[in-house]
Amino acid sequence: MRRGRKTANILWGSPASVLVGDFLYSKAFQLMVALENNLVLEVLADATNVIAEGEVMQLLSCNDPETTEKQYLNTIQHKTAKLFEAAAGLGAIIAGNCEDKILSMNAYGRHIGTAFQLIDDALDYESSSETLGKNIGDDLAEGKPTLPLLYAMWNGTEQESTIIRETIISGGLQHLHEIKDAIKSTGAVRYTLKLAQSEATLGLAALEVLPDSLFKMALKELALFSTVRKS
Amino acid sequence: MRRGRKTANILWGSPASVLVGDFLYSKAFQLMVALENNLVLEVLADATNVIAEGEVMQLLSCNDPETTEKQYLNTIQHKTAKLFEAAAGLGAIIAGNCEDKILSMNAYGRHIGTAFQLIDDALDYESSSETLGKNIGDDLAEGKPTLPLLYAMWNGTEQESTIIRETIISGGLQHLHEIKDAIKSTGAVRYTLKLAQSEATLGLAALEVLPDSLFKMALKELALFSTVRKS
Repeated sequence: MRRGRKTANILWGSPASVLVGDFLYSKAFQLMVALENNLVLEVLADATNVIAEGEVMQLLSCNDPETTEKQYLNTIQHKTAKLFEAAAGLGAIIAGNCEDKILSMNAYGRHIGTAFQLIDDALDYESSSETLGKNIGDDLAEGKPTLPLLYAMWNGTEQESTIIRETIISGGLQHLHEIKDAIKSTGAVRYTLKLAQSEATLGLAALEVLPDSLFKMALKELALFSTVRKS
Repeated sequence: MRRGRKTANILWGSPASVLVGDFLYSKAFQLMVALENNLVLEVLADATNVIAEGEVMQLLSCNDPETTEKQYLNTIQHKTAKLFEAAAGLGAIIAGNCEDKILSMNAYGRHIGTAFQLIDDALDYESSSETLGKNIGDDLAEGKPTLPLLYAMWNGTEQESTIIRETIISGGLQHLHEIKDAIKSTGAVRYTLKLAQSEATLGLAALEVLPDSLFKMALKELALFSTVRKS
């Protein structure tokens, strides 16, 4: 489930979903090339490369309870944050802005991308399936060591720690209830949310270089929204 | 099995194989952008798009015994032939050749790509597993209506026709032996090979515009090899 609807994968199977994804990517590639702006292509090629690397990093850390907070953050910097950074920076590039505005927009995207992913990982344990529109505990089922889970493992009772460690290794939802309790009692979601909020604040600060406008207001709204969304 | 070795998919599973594939593609994308030649990017973007479309077409025709020879050829034009066309044409573009040489090299690649795929589809029924280095009957197992199979269905006895039709619909290797017999008795491989040879001849003809050189000889060799390979 994504956004409350069945995924393409469920509806049409993996081969069709992967191939149509490739097709859409190739369409996007054609649109980029049509701009005839080499810097745009460089940014997108580099971002694609970093994101692919981030996905590999995420796969490698899967089922690894020794994952550190630094490794976790490094993975989301590569994966989600890089995508947001490229999206925000390209707007500044295409509009012909100077170097320091491009860098500021890069920073804006990077910070709200990080906030977005932190919240996403928290929502996997917090939301109801109805609000979130995807399955609760998906990350847990796959043994993905996201920050809320790691934090509860580091700060829970010995018993909670052991259960979480074993669930990261094996994956599965048998202990979802106890693990949600540990996440609650250790304040793991609160901790994750605090990190997301400081990222959003850094994102807002990066907007300072822009002149006031309706667009700047919209970007501010987006940064604020990134930490309060419930789905 | 591919080229006599276990596939990455078998060794490391789908997620790792797909992600490392994405990573390699993104590396290639970076190398293309580094050339700073927009025509190169256009050719590759268009080729990627056509190939993705060809893969979708192939998926749609899977398990469809009503596939016509025209549809089959159209799919391989999109899929394999386009890849060879882009590869051959880009050499001419990067070397700074004039339009008509680029078009000739495109044609060369397109024709030997078509020949390559026709032979590939014939080898799926002809070769021993040892020579081919992949599993015999892979296409049959998936219900892929390739030309040798379609030709045997169109020209076999009523009973053979029925077995082939049902196997395309369901996939599977239960009737591999009878189907290989039908392919043999109808001359389906010979028919496919003849088509491949006329494609290779067209590929050779496209080389006429090039001045004699060691490279031209190598391209000729490649065109000739494309129809005689056994694996």
